Parts: sequence; structure tokens; C-alpha cells
Amino acid sequence: MYKIGIDLGGTNIAVGIVNENCQIIAKDSTPTKADRPYDEIVNDICLVVKRVLDNNGISLDEVSSIGFGSPGILDNEKGTVTDNSNIHWENYPIKEKIQKQINKPVYMGNDANVAAWAEYLGGAGRGSKNMIMLTLGTGIGGGIIIEGKLITGSHNIGAEIGHSLLVADGEQCGCGNKGCIEAYCSATALIKFAKRNLKDNPDSSLAKKEHINAKTVIDAAKAGDRYASEIFDDYTTNLARFLGSLINFLDPDIIVLGGGVANAGEFLLEPLRKKTPAYTVFPQLTNTNIVKAALGNDAGIIGAALLGE
Amino acid sequence: MYKIGIDLGGTNIAVGIVNENCQIIAKDSTPTKADRPYDEIVNDICLVVKRVLDNNGISLDEVSSIGFGSPGILDNEKGTVTDNSNIHWENYPIKEKIQKQINKPVYMGNDANVAAWAEYLGGAGRGSKNMIMLTLGTGIGGGIIIEGKLITGSHNIGAEIGHSLLVADGEQCGCGNKGCIEAYCSATALIKFAKRNLKDNPDSSLAKKEHINAKTVIDAAKAGDRYASEIFDDYTTNLARFLGSLINFLDPDIIVLGGGVANAGEFLLEPLRKKTPAYTVFPQLTNTNIVKAALGNDAGIIGAALLGE
Repeated sequence: MYKIGIDLGGTNIAVGIVNENCQIIAKDSTPTKADRPYDEIVNDICLVVKRVLDNNGISLDEVSSIGFGSPGILDNEKGTVTDNSNIHWENYPIKEKIQKQINKPVYMGNDANVAAWAEYLGGAGRGSKNMIMLTLGTGIGGGIIIEGKLITGSHNIGAEIGHSLLVADGEQCGCGNKGCIEAYCSATALIKFAKRNLKDNPDSSLAKKEHINAKTVIDAAKAGDRYASEIFDDYTTNLARFLGSLINFLDPDIIVLGGGVANAGEFLLEPLRKKTPAYTVFPQLTNTNIVKAALGNDAGIIGAALLGE
Repeated sequence: MYKIGIDLGGTNIAVGIVNENCQIIAKDSTPTKADRPYDEIVNDICLVVKRVLDNNGISLDEVSSIGFGSPGILDNEKGTVTDNSNIHWENYPIKEKIQKQINKPVYMGNDANVAAWAEYLGGAGRGSKNMIMLTLGTGIGGGIIIEGKLITGSHNIGAEIGHSLLVADGEQCGCGNKGCIEAYCSATALIKFAKRNLKDNPDSSLAKKEHINAKTVIDAAKAGDRYASEIFDDYTTNLARFLGSLINFLDPDIIVLGGGVANAGEFLLEPLRKKTPAYTVFPQLTNTNIVKAALGNDAGIIGAALLGE
């Protein structure tokens, strides 16, 4: 049997057919055009689901369930989605709307959470018991898996890992609060810190760049640029402090890092592995693997599909 | 059937018989004398277990299991305890040692974790699904229950809630790191902050006290002392920030507060309930109860007993 995974983003509706080995065997997509009425978006979702099945000669009888992931607050029991970012839905009964057109069990979850679920079942976290994933991108998303369960909390507003405290009353965060880890360790924050004192560091190679993104900063640090190296060293120190705090709290066997900054690979992971134990209560007993995510953008589709039993 | 709960502290070995309603029907204790060889302590534990049963006319046949709680790192699967504080045990096979003298299933857990387990099953958290407990005492201990399971992590070093970050690189913490919530919101920290600027506040009623403890500070704040009120206001702000971060992370239905500072009751809880939602990502959806622990010191015995199935 196959499972369908739907990854609804602000730009694209991506749909994939996932096999029993947690692999995408075919995918298709269409633009979200997020300003449309909800029902039009759902029509397009269902159209793409049917199209990808047709194009690959798979019938609905071979599909056991449909999984749906999107930003926002998703209530899997009620079948509703409330989105606070791109799509502005409020308690929209997406499950019922999909089932009207395709009569299959529908499961749903927040996009960052389902990406973690994909890494847990079919990616970097495979075989682990307790896993935390952080996506170091524009913001910081992620997911928490404890003893084989994807944790979303009692009111579906948990696993907002990016809004755990690093420095109470510290840097302003996009959420309105101050001092969240997102305000220190997202790609956006890395760029912010790189720009902040750049005019006092005219010798840095970054000073000559027209546009600075996370990769620019990381590449400059890799090349030995002193200023960029200091910025990135502060970055890994702050992230290590946070990982230490996470280990004190949940003691996972594995922490998986995704998103743009994680593309730095060992240049990010190696200092994190070195620094993190010192920020735990029991450095000598700290034994949490810190690794890079394995599935990339496919995690959204795979994780949504794997929500189905 | 009854369950036996053992609460091994640095000062006393406390033992209780717990009935099926999670209540202690009889208890007994003896001094720990922690500097003795391990085996002598275990002999005394078993002696007190047998004595409390004898004295209450209950036979071992009526006991389904024994639960053991103590400070330190307890490995329930291996049956060992490693204590880093009072008793200086290292991988001591306590389960096997107890079973040599009393042949019953033995379960074990960290004392702060089992106290949370007691509150979850038979105290303030009864009926909840996801609960976090914080004990605001000399340090900050606690426990995490997620979907009905007591969470201790992959290597039994989790649920060190007191060593979650509030302010990275902030106040020195007893664990060796800086900025843990324990360094801001334990009873010890409250006293530290009250003393810190006291000489600049000679008008405060606290300036006339020979000895300042958490209750002194709270009582002065209750009585309207300006300086004590400011200290306690900062305290509840910091704790609310941390609770907000916890809600973002795990979104529990209930947060239970125990320990000396929680004896302030509504004087503590009311400002926390007022301040906490603003420190979450979704203030309007934040719906976590913040309550006082119900079981007091008995939680150690009850929680240990209830580890048994």
C-alpha cells in the first residue's frame, strides 16, 4: 500500500506518493496562490493528488491514507487548521473538505513537526527512541519525538522549539517576545549579527559583499575571515548552549539539524559536538548524537504521508 | 494489593505503604547516615520495609511491588543508582541488593521525577495528559509527564528542568554553568537577589532581619514592603518567562509548582497566571493551568510506590 503526503506551503502545494520504505516514488505540485478562497486551494490539492496517482498508474485502492502538513496550528482530532503566517486560515475543516473529494483517512500535522517525523522514521533519526529536530532557516522550526510519538502538546501549540528561551529579555524575536533561540540561531539571526558590526570591520571579506546570506557568512568563516569566524563562533556557542539545555531537559539520543545553516555540515556540527557537553549537567554522561538532517525538502511530503498508520 | 514506596534522602530513609487510591496508609523512617557503606544503608531500607509491614499487620503477599526514589541518576532497566549529591554512589546495583532481601519487583526513579509522578497520578495533576512539575526549593527539581509517561530521557539524565536556560551566560548556577532557571527561581536564588542590594535599601523591613529565607522575602512582599515586592515581582517575571518557554516547547495541560516558594500559594500563582501567556507564541490559545502541588513531602514515597505497575 502507498500513502499520500501533501505539503502545503505559502508558494507551492507539493504532493507525493510514499511507499512502505518511507520513500517518495512520485511527486507533483501546483502553485498555492495563497490569497484564494480556501475551497479553491483544496480543489487544487485534490486535483494534484488524483493527477500524481493517474500519471503513475496507481489507483486509490492502493492508497491507505492521506497526510497533510502545513504551517500553523493543526488539530489532527478535529481535522482543522489555523494558520498564523501565510494562508490566514482559521479553524478551517481541511480534513472534511479533502474527504468530500477523496474518501480516505486523512491525518495532519504542522509542517515543521511532520518534517521531524519524516527524519525520525525514514531519515537521520531512524532507529532512535527520543529525537529533537531543529530547522535552522528563516526562523527555527522543529519537532519533538519522545518514545516513538510525535509530540504536539495538549492544545496543539507545542513544539514551537524556536521560541524556547536562550536569553530572557534578550534579542527581539519575530514572535513578539525577546530572547528566543530563533532570534540567535536562525539563518536570519546569523545574517543580522554579521551585519551588525560590519562597518567597524571593513577588512572583512563580508564588507565587500553586496548581499549577505547565511552561506556568505559561513563561506567567509570557512575561508578564515576573522570577523566572520567570530560571528560563526558566537553562533555555534549559542546553539551549543541551547542544545545543552535541551539535553538537560529531555536527554534525547539524537538531535537532528536541518535548514539552510545545517548545509554547513561538519563545519557546524563539529564545534557543536565539541561545545555542547560543557553546557549540560553531566558532561561525562552526555551521549546525544548531533547530526544533519537527511531528507531535505522531501521531509515535508514524507512526514505528512507517514502520519497515517 | 499494596505498594511500597521508599524515599531515600540525604538525612532520612522514609518508607510508606501505598494503597490503590495512591494514599499512604502507614509510614516509617530511619536516619540515612549517608557516610556508611552502601550495603548497611540497604540493610536499613529493608529493615524499615519489613517493620512498617509488620507493625500494620500486612504480609509481603499483599505487596505487589517496591518503588525506590533517591537523588541522582537512576537506571530503572539496569537497576542501578549513581548519586552525584549526598550519597556518592556509583552504579550501585540497588535493585538486586533489595531483591536479595525482599523478593518483589523493584522499580526506581530520581526523587524529583517520582514526586512529579505522584502529583500526576494522585495529586494536583490528576486527570491531566501532559504535566510539568517544578520544585522551587534549594534547587529546582521536577518531572515531565507526556501522554501518561514519566520522561527521563535516553540515558536517564533528562528532566533536569532546573538546568534549562533562562539567560545564557547569566547568573552562576550550582551546576557549574551560567544562566539556568535554578539560578533565578530557586528559593536560594530568591534569597540571593533579596540580599544583593539590601544595603542600598535600608528602609526595607528585610534590612532589619538577622536571617533571610524565602518565606521572609515573600512575607515582606505580602506586607507591602517596596524592596521585597520588587524582588518578588522580578522573580515571578522570570518564572513566567520560563513557563512561557515551556509552554512553547511542550504545551502541557498543567504546570505544578512545589517546594518552599510554592507555599506562597496564590501570591505566587496569581502573578504567574497573569504574566505567563504574554511570554508564549500564542497568548490567546495558551490554556495551561498553573497550580500548587498537593502532596507535599509525601510525594516522594507515593511516587516511588506508583512506579510499580
